[in-house]
Amino acid sequence: MASHLKGATAVETHSAVLDLIRSSGVVSRIELADRSGLTGASISRIVKRLLDEGLIVETGVGDRTGGKRRTLLQLNAGARHAVGISLDVAGITYVVTDLSGVVVTRLDAAGTGEQPPTEVVDRIARELQDVLAGAGVEPSTLMGVGLAVAGRQDSAHHVLRSNPEATEWELFDIEQRLSDATGLPVVIENDSTCAAIGEFWVGRMPASADFATVYLASGFGLGLVTNGDVYRGSSSNVGEIGHLVLDVHGPPCWCGSRGCLEMLAAPARIVERALEQPGLAAELGLQGLPSTVRDDAARVAEAAAADHEQALPVVEESAYYLGKALVSLTNLLDLDQIVLAGPGFGAAGEIYVRQAWQDLEQLAFVRAVHPTTVVLSKSGAISAALGAASLVLHSRLTPHQTSSRLALALT
Amino acid sequence: MASHLKGATAVETHSAVLDLIRSSGVVSRIELADRSGLTGASISRIVKRLLDEGLIVETGVGDRTGGKRRTLLQLNAGARHAVGISLDVAGITYVVTDLSGVVVTRLDAAGTGEQPPTEVVDRIARELQDVLAGAGVEPSTLMGVGLAVAGRQDSAHHVLRSNPEATEWELFDIEQRLSDATGLPVVIENDSTCAAIGEFWVGRMPASADFATVYLASGFGLGLVTNGDVYRGSSSNVGEIGHLVLDVHGPPCWCGSRGCLEMLAAPARIVERALEQPGLAAELGLQGLPSTVRDDAARVAEAAAADHEQALPVVEESAYYLGKALVSLTNLLDLDQIVLAGPGFGAAGEIYVRQAWQDLEQLAFVRAVHPTTVVLSKSGAISAALGAASLVLHSRLTPHQTSSRLALALT
Repeated sequence: MASHLKGATAVETHSAVLDLIRSSGVVSRIELADRSGLTGASISRIVKRLLDEGLIVETGVGDRTGGKRRTLLQLNAGARHAVGISLDVAGITYVVTDLSGVVVTRLDAAGTGEQPPTEVVDRIARELQDVLAGAGVEPSTLMGVGLAVAGRQDSAHHVLRSNPEATEWELFDIEQRLSDATGLPVVIENDSTCAAIGEFWVGRMPASADFATVYLASGFGLGLVTNGDVYRGSSSNVGEIGHLVLDVHGPPCWCGSRGCLEMLAAPARIVERALEQPGLAAELGLQGLPSTVRDDAARVAEAAAADHEQALPVVEESAYYLGKALVSLTNLLDLDQIVLAGPGFGAAGEIYVRQAWQDLEQLAFVRAVHPTTVVLSKSGAISAALGAASLVLHSRLTPHQTSSRLALALT
Repeated sequence: MASHLKGATAVETHSAVLDLIRSSGVVSRIELADRSGLTGASISRIVKRLLDEGLIVETGVGDRTGGKRRTLLQLNAGARHAVGISLDVAGITYVVTDLSGVVVTRLDAAGTGEQPPTEVVDRIARELQDVLAGAGVEPSTLMGVGLAVAGRQDSAHHVLRSNPEATEWELFDIEQRLSDATGLPVVIENDSTCAAIGEFWVGRMPASADFATVYLASGFGLGLVTNGDVYRGSSSNVGEIGHLVLDVHGPPCWCGSRGCLEMLAAPARIVERALEQPGLAAELGLQGLPSTVRDDAARVAEAAAADHEQALPVVEESAYYLGKALVSLTNLLDLDQIVLAGPGFGAAGEIYVRQAWQDLEQLAFVRAVHPTTVVLSKSGAISAALGAASLVLHSRLTPHQTSSRLALALT
């Protein structure tokens, strides 16, 4: 491991050691030197500074080796907090995590819907204040806000939505506006990429993994980790798997193409299919309004998960198309693992996993060489918000993780 | 640039300097020190060793800066040679390159067809001997053979073809067999990945590029460079874009899925469509045999390129489907550039490029943020073989380029 730290700057070394403490749980100075390849003197100096900053604490002594008793170090988890917000037309989720990534508090609020972006920003600032006050989080411990968003982004971090119903978001600099409204630094990232980053944080993926996270909120997105590194594409607009063309002669999509996965399998399509069966719609109490899509889809998912005779085929149809998209995806990218995450999978996640396993086993081009496994994220509905919060912790505490490779190699 | 060489091993430094000389054309020791960040003493030592090995030569003096006249160094291009072979059911292409990547000689031979793999290996050994003798390449200068193959690969470098017509290739260790038959080291790589590597070598792509090479021989493949690094996937089976599902309810493909790009747009489909028009088939002299697919498709492509009224729509239909596949691809990966390469594009390459530009301009999800450009490879039909040869030069001369990032950063 020593070689990983050669050539690193002082700041990088400092943050890599912090990350090593985080990922170790409890660790002695000698173990730190051993694992980092740094000298004992360097470790002592860095540890002193981390103690001075209050980022770590000494915690008793250990004598695991039977030799000299050593003072152990661990993260001072409560010393700093990060906010993660996932922003979607149908729901806004807030999480506040401590330094170790543990969720301290959480709130699910109404989505952006048709609310103008300026009002959304004001509302977020209010809701965030309430969340923090309710959980007793000291504002001085806040390091910043990570914002997970759907839709295209340009290089100035505007969110550019092609969706004609959301033109006001075009060229709206939400990163700056939200920073002004909250007085906190804000980092913005694609929600699916956040979900993938969250898998590293929470799911402890191996550093060498080539994996993808399919994130489903109102639409589908894909976060990619290739060669053990987050892949953002040339303009941070990677992963629009919802606009993978599955039926080239199919129904037109708002993006311009035809037969996109989103048209065939997203929550809006599930609700549309359920509403075609009046008995089912009445039984589940579906409202069928644009603002109730996610709630309606969740009811169909719950019924399907309980093997409801009419609801199950509706969700299975959605899973059928996602399965085919995942086959295309792994044919292109030769992935080890696909993680399904986000509120859109809801109660019916296992139905999607089952179909995906079957399709990948029977259809994936590489099936004779190795399996591509599909699992549900342990973070479930909050995976994007959690990933966004971890992005703050990464970018503020461990800046070397802009390229996350070094830290991964160390964990 | 200095930081790039910190932490590098002696072998890595040695090969990085060689690569710097290669990419510089002619260069002085002082310029080398400048560009590498190494000390003058280190450069002198490394240069002496490269001179001793005959890999570089001193070539006159330069006085560009008006100061002291300096001895210039350049690659001793003829000192070593590499063989690149692309292996396809419809054609085998041989290239021999010198150290600088310049093609010394080339041969196009019959494809693997239905010939048993043991016979194919014997034939390759014979044909290679003839090629080398014909070009007067001294066998002692040969560093090895790079072999570009289609089909799946397992971790032992077997070529596993799902195609039921080629079961004999399953578990046939072509890397070892060809090495035994030629007495040369053999490295094997996916043909599309070879084509992408060839773009770096010949096309001088920028180090930061996120680009893809779509390689078309008998089928479509995709070579990917992400974050400036070749992406091979978890088992070197990346890039099966031919098995991107475009028409989920479409015709069954031999891979197990339905409506794959290959079924809708590959040379075999072009020939099939042309044969549906007896007048066209007769006029172009199509034979319609499995062994003449590539030749037949080339005739249709040539006619289409000359605006033949019946041939043009046939190729345009193929380009229509490829265009939609490229939209899906860039929606997933947010690419800067897509390079079309390989013999399958043949004379009709511009028809594919035109359709792809149109589709990406009108349909790509990221179109409002940045364009995705599409170009034809300058290496054309030999791009996979050329990339395979450069792989030998890379892996034998510049082993650090297993991860090509360092060398790219230096060029």
